[in-house]
Amino acid sequence: MKLQAAIDRVSLDRANEIAKGLDGIVDIIELGTSLVKDYGFETLKREFVGLNESTLLFDGKTIDEGEYEFEKGFEANADILTVMAGSSIDTLSKTYEVTEKLNKQMFIDLLEVEDDKIKQIANFKNAIYGLHHSKDNKNAFDAVSSVAAFHKQFPDISNIAVAGGIDVDQAKKLSEQGIANIVIVGGKISGADDPVAAAKQFMEVIK
Amino acid sequence: MKLQAAIDRVSLDRANEIAKGLDGIVDIIELGTSLVKDYGFETLKREFVGLNESTLLFDGKTIDEGEYEFEKGFEANADILTVMAGSSIDTLSKTYEVTEKLNKQMFIDLLEVEDDKIKQIANFKNAIYGLHHSKDNKNAFDAVSSVAAFHKQFPDISNIAVAGGIDVDQAKKLSEQGIANIVIVGGKISGADDPVAAAKQFMEVIK
Repeated sequence: MKLQAAIDRVSLDRANEIAKGLDGIVDIIELGTSLVKDYGFETLKREFVGLNESTLLFDGKTIDEGEYEFEKGFEANADILTVMAGSSIDTLSKTYEVTEKLNKQMFIDLLEVEDDKIKQIANFKNAIYGLHHSKDNKNAFDAVSSVAAFHKQFPDISNIAVAGGIDVDQAKKLSEQGIANIVIVGGKISGADDPVAAAKQFMEVIK
Repeated sequence: MKLQAAIDRVSLDRANEIAKGLDGIVDIIELGTSLVKDYGFETLKREFVGLNESTLLFDGKTIDEGEYEFEKGFEANADILTVMAGSSIDTLSKTYEVTEKLNKQMFIDLLEVEDDKIKQIANFKNAIYGLHHSKDNKNAFDAVSSVAAFHKQFPDISNIAVAGGIDVDQAKKLSEQGIANIVIVGGKISGADDPVAAAKQFMEVIK
């Protein structure tokens, strides 16, 4: 299982510091939606520090204008970009087309979609499908049982990421469960006093 | 009926030029999602020219983190911000709360949602409800009949905006129809050789 560390709601200077520290320690470094909407692809292209070893994901949450946003995001050095599952099939097809052409990767954010829609969009074979608990939803989220239920419902979707307030204990259980390919950790790493030490703790429990 | 001119997929310098020209001529000037994601709220706050007379809308298409994004967008001088109807009720409630507290306005983008969801979110009484034909959908869009059908289905929603490839002829018909409160025009104004002349043509046919 890979570890994706999400950086959110900090200044670009702080994001650069955190990303420099985490580069090569975690598998994927995410610049969250807050950084995309606060700074924009143009600024991120010029001023984000860049990564030597880890993969870079921008959580742009595309929902329309798929081709334009994905071209812009990849030009700004992202390796992975996100698109909402709630987008039209036309949008998802376009983002996938741009992604495949550039040999990059598409991450489909499953926030707020029904099972019927997931069935319709389960065929993007190189995409990552992200189970995502809304930051605005304060109900508890059991990542392990959510992943199990999703896998049972959609056995053909093999590339699964999971996000939502995940701590070291949940990460360990997700790793033991062996279904999800990527665990996404936000505040527990990037919000820690020492993000590198926190990331190492997560890496230790992930196989 | 008000005219909203949307500026999209241009440099910020060009957006500033167009906005300066249209200020006071159209009712609402929109900086489209492309400008939000290319430049970000921080840059728009510092470098967007600012408006003296027209109302300013940023099409940020919030879908999660409602409070954070709306606070950032309004801090960056927007008078109106957009949120996706496909967001969770929690997100929509938070964006509405921030908007009402700051005495600004919320625009709910109805892209890709079913009637059931619209029924659930029809109660934000000061919000604008935006009928929106996806830019990635190349099927023809008849704005007049779409507005009529929407009004019949949701008679209690009184503040309606409509967007999607609208030309002078359609704008005239929408105005005569008398249901929509706002008509949104994109390329036909901001993409014209003379955006001010184009905007004036639209204003002439709108009552």
